[in-house]
Formats: sequence, C-alpha cells, structure tokens
Amino acid sequence: MPRLKTIEWGDNSVRIIDQTLLPARLSYCKIDSITATYDAIKTLKIRGAPAIGVAGAYGLYLGMADFPEDRSVTDFLIYLDKNVRYLDSSRPTAVNLSWALQRLRTKAKEISAGKTILQIKQALLEEAHAIFEEDRTNCRKIGENGFELIKEYHTILTHCNAGGLATTEYGTALAPLYIGTERGRIFSVYADETRPLLQGARITAFELNEAGIPVTVICDSMAASVIAAGKVDAIIVGADRIAANGDTANKIGTYSLALVAREHKIPFFVAAPLSTFDTAIPSGNDIPIEEREPGEITDGFGKRTVPDGVAVYNPAFDITPYRYISAIITEKGIILPPFETGISRLTAEN
Amino acid sequence: MPRLKTIEWGDNSVRIIDQTLLPARLSYCKIDSITATYDAIKTLKIRGAPAIGVAGAYGLYLGMADFPEDRSVTDFLIYLDKNVRYLDSSRPTAVNLSWALQRLRTKAKEISAGKTILQIKQALLEEAHAIFEEDRTNCRKIGENGFELIKEYHTILTHCNAGGLATTEYGTALAPLYIGTERGRIFSVYADETRPLLQGARITAFELNEAGIPVTVICDSMAASVIAAGKVDAIIVGADRIAANGDTANKIGTYSLALVAREHKIPFFVAAPLSTFDTAIPSGNDIPIEEREPGEITDGFGKRTVPDGVAVYNPAFDITPYRYISAIITEKGIILPPFETGISRLTAEN
Repeated sequence: MPRLKTIEWGDNSVRIIDQTLLPARLSYCKIDSITATYDAIKTLKIRGAPAIGVAGAYGLYLGMADFPEDRSVTDFLIYLDKNVRYLDSSRPTAVNLSWALQRLRTKAKEISAGKTILQIKQALLEEAHAIFEEDRTNCRKIGENGFELIKEYHTILTHCNAGGLATTEYGTALAPLYIGTERGRIFSVYADETRPLLQGARITAFELNEAGIPVTVICDSMAASVIAAGKVDAIIVGADRIAANGDTANKIGTYSLALVAREHKIPFFVAAPLSTFDTAIPSGNDIPIEEREPGEITDGFGKRTVPDGVAVYNPAFDITPYRYISAIITEKGIILPPFETGISRLTAEN
Repeated sequence: MPRLKTIEWGDNSVRIIDQTLLPARLSYCKIDSITATYDAIKTLKIRGAPAIGVAGAYGLYLGMADFPEDRSVTDFLIYLDKNVRYLDSSRPTAVNLSWALQRLRTKAKEISAGKTILQIKQALLEEAHAIFEEDRTNCRKIGENGFELIKEYHTILTHCNAGGLATTEYGTALAPLYIGTERGRIFSVYADETRPLLQGARITAFELNEAGIPVTVICDSMAASVIAAGKVDAIIVGADRIAANGDTANKIGTYSLALVAREHKIPFFVAAPLSTFDTAIPSGNDIPIEEREPGEITDGFGKRTVPDGVAVYNPAFDITPYRYISAIITEKGIILPPFETGISRLTAEN
C-alpha cells in the first residue's frame, strides 16, 4: 500500500528519502559511507526506530567495506567494534539501532573462524538485507495484527510518524490503517503535528495523503480537546524502546496522550516490532532520553521564536508507563496487560 | 514590577505593543479608530482576555468620538449598539471584551437622559479609563492573593501568556510571581511555547526575562514529561471565560495540563479577574470556542509545514472542567471547590 521507498540498497550504497525536506520536496539522497550514515541518522534525514535500525546495518557494512582484505580477521573485528560504537552513538533512545548493529557484530564473530575478510563482509551485507526484509514482513504482520484491534473503529489519532517513512514499508502505528485500507475499510486520522520537528505534520500527513487516507493535522496541544469532544476512537503510536515491564519510550508528547486516552476511556495502543523491546532493562526509568539542540525549538522554522538568553529544554522522548497502555501490537501477536509475561514470552521465542 | 506598557491612552489614541512582532522587536503601534482596534484584536497585536477588554473599551470610545454632536442621543445610542456588536465579534471566546463593551453601553444608557452627546462621549472615555485602572488594581490583588497560594513553591509551569502583556500591568497567572519577586522570593518558570502562535515562547518568556525571572521554554508536548520528572511544583494559567460551575475556557492545551497536574498531584490554579466570569452560562459546554485560520498551523513560521491539500483543525481554546481545578485566584480572594458557591457569592458582590 505505501508507495514511498524510505530506504533502498543498490549500487553499493543506500538511497533514502531526505525526510528533513518533507513536505516541500520529496528528494532522495545517496549514502555511501559510515560517516554519511551517522550524519543522516543524527540529523534525522532518516528517522523512525525500525528505519534507523536498517540504515545502521547498511551503514556498518559500508564502514567495513573498504577494510583491507590482507589484514587479520582480529583487526577486522576490532575495527567492527569501533564502528558499532560510533554508529550507535548517533541516537541513544531507539534500541533498534543498537539491536541491528549488535546483530551484525554477532554474525561476524560467529562466522569469523576460518572465513576470509571478504566473506565476513559479504555476511554483514547479507545480514543487513535480512534485517531489511524482516522489517518489511514484520511491519506487515503488525498491520494485520493491529487491524484486528481497530477494525471496528473509524477515527484514529497518532503522534509523530510511525508510518512507512519510519520503517522500510508499512510502518508500525500506521500499518493497521494501511492493511485496513487494502481491505476496503475507511479510516480517518488525526495527526499531531509533533513539535519541535513536526514529523506528524510533515511526514505522517504526507504519507497518509499519498496513500489516500483522510488526515487532519492538529497541534499537539489540541489532541486532548479533540478526544474530549468524542472525535477519536483510539490512539496508536510507535515506540523507540520498550522495557521489560511495558514502559514505552516514544516521541515527546506521547505520555500525555496516554493520560488523556485513559481519562476519556479510549484505547491507547503501541505498535512495534520485537526489535524495539529491551528486556535487559526492567522499566522506563532506565531508558536513556536523548536531549536535542535548543535550536530545534528556538529557530525551528527559520525565524527565532524565543527571546535571546532564555533557557530551552528539548527532550526528544518521554516514557509512557505500562499501566496506561491498552495493548502492544507486535509481529508475533498482540500483547495484553500484564505485559511483563507476554513480553518475556514473545521476546524469548524470537 | 513589570515595566512593559501593554496599553496606554494618550493624545486621543491608544498605544499598544504590537505583540505579533515579539520577541524579535519591541514595537509600539498607535490605534486611533474602532476599525484599527478591531484589527488589532483580531490579528492578536493585542491579546489576553483582560487586555482586550481594556482595548475594546477605548476602541468603542474611539468609534463614538466623531459622532456628530448635533444629532440625537437616540441615534448616538443606536450607533453605540452597532459598534458594540462590531467590536464584540472580533474575538468570541474571552468574555472580558464583551463585559467591557457592555459596561460602556450600560453607562451611556444610564446617564443619557438630559446629557449632551459630548457629555456621554466624555463618560465613555472615563469608563474606559476606569476599566484600565481597575485592571491594574485587580491584577495586583490577584498577584497578592495568588502569592499566598504559591509562596512555598519554587517552580511554576504556565501556558500561553497571562502576564503583564495580557493585561495592563501585572498579569493574572504571572501576577503572583511578580508580587513574590517584589517580596524577594525566587521563582523559576517553565513556559509552554503554546502552539500555534507561540505566546508562551514569544511573550511569556519575553516578559519574565525582562523582569529577571528565570524561565525555561519547552514545547507544549514536553510539559507532561517535565511534570512527571517532579520538576514542577504548581501550574498557573489565566482564563478567557469561566462558567458558573467553574469550567474554564483558556488557550488550547490547558485541559491536558490539568489532567497531568491531577495525575501527578500538583495543584492546578486558574487566575482571573471577576470580569472573566460568565455566570449567565451554567457550564463550559456553552462557551463558544473560536476556530482560527489553518494558516496559523500550516504556515506559522514562514515555511509551509503541512502538505498541500491536507485538512487542518485549529481551535484556539479548550475547556478545563472544574473538577481538575484546585483553586481560582481572583482580585476578591481565592475561590475553592465547590466553585459554584464561591463564584456566585463573589460575582454577586461585584
């Protein structure tokens, strides 16, 4: 259903949509080095937890592709570790990046005995392709599973962008809407604009509009009033990291939506692949929250909107405690409260 | 304490700060007609419920000042009614505008018998001056009363601008902070930027910074996370209209703050003069909510941030139900729940 190619491999490089230019321009850029990957992730040319996992995997391969093949495998693995740490530092909150990088690292270590550097490089690229393909399949499954939850609903509110442009194709939070649309259901969506970087207004509205799904943009501060007026049947958001107890890090502003949903007795769903779960950490208290540049708030639109000399605080994510979440939609099924059990079971199977 | 002159009468005209230019430029503009007043209110050059009440009163006088003095008092009063309706239509939600216009209208009718048109005009100007002076006094009283509530606190969060720039001098929500500062207390403030028009970032941050009160600007979506982290002791906001039961219309985004405050057990205070109460209406359901141009959201910063053809919804206010409000601070004292009794008593005395 979504026709936009968020990320594609070809010609020994990655082609991505430069999302900082949306909605004014649908423009692609070519990434052919690990430093360009770091930059693209850091500056949000590519963003969305699953998409930066895929981009990170390809970027790590690109960082290793030129490693001299006459050197030792040990040196190769040391350099790989260094590159993993480098790329992983581009964005701290979404665990998918770290998960993808570790997956390539583990692959390299597992197969390194008796293999040439060329063969290990090839295995890294194949692993990156596998992550890409799994993301496509998993998001489609999230869509199918999520559709079962929302098929009786009409109007869905979402925050930030957890759509096709946050993944390889179907998205997470928006996947159930795409699947439903393929099956002839008509949904309409309220998209929070999502300050400071307006991923909702710029990206979610763009991709839903491209797909012919009616969307209305509101400011983040308007969601509560729209929900209080009875205009929203359910909220679905994505996630950047989910702790073992279900506490969920997602774009700043998610937590207050969850409070409003509970107050007005509408369901609040989180949609995410299993790669977003971090069962090594017990609760949201342990999730690192990225703090970004004040300029995103003070000069986000080309004109200074905060007086000089005034302090600004710009956390990029917040934590929604598990108790406000109605269900978590994954590729392996729906997890219902109490989440700890379901998360433990599904991630163990994975 | 606040040194900015939001609105001043002189030379047969009103001088206001053009608040659309803040924080880049502190620029004054002169208003010498009723149409210029209408325009200044509609385009938010002057804004804030009490300030538009004062501006409206002077504007109505300006609309009547050139009325030919050889015509009948009856014609004068008919023309006055027409001008009242005209100015009152500039912004529908804040009741202070309507209240001030009706006050001038009532004055004119009361004294019209046996008076010349010149004398009635003079009485209108005096009434406008009285409204101005009462606003100064009342806001100072709100500050003194509110200070008693917050004197043990350190960090206050506010939304939009209910400061000196929303009134003639001390503000409503910010008045307790100014009074406290005069008395040597040190407060710090989180100011929600307040999309779409950023009155918090542009105006509240500006005036607090001018007054030397430490202020940190956050996006509206960040308030819940800042509160959840225990960084806020209390929330104080202004009001545009308060119904007989205490339901409060205020800038869009206020309602969700009230929900977050309750969840995290911090007090949520509303500060407003008695002219903001509309006891003719029983509850918030009956308060008209102004819907403003989509362009405020889509093109607010000079660059289009929503794709062409995508719907936008832009309500300027929301309703906070009385049950989320800890206390209402007025010039006549603090009203505690159940509000109905206190509101009825204080407004009857007025």
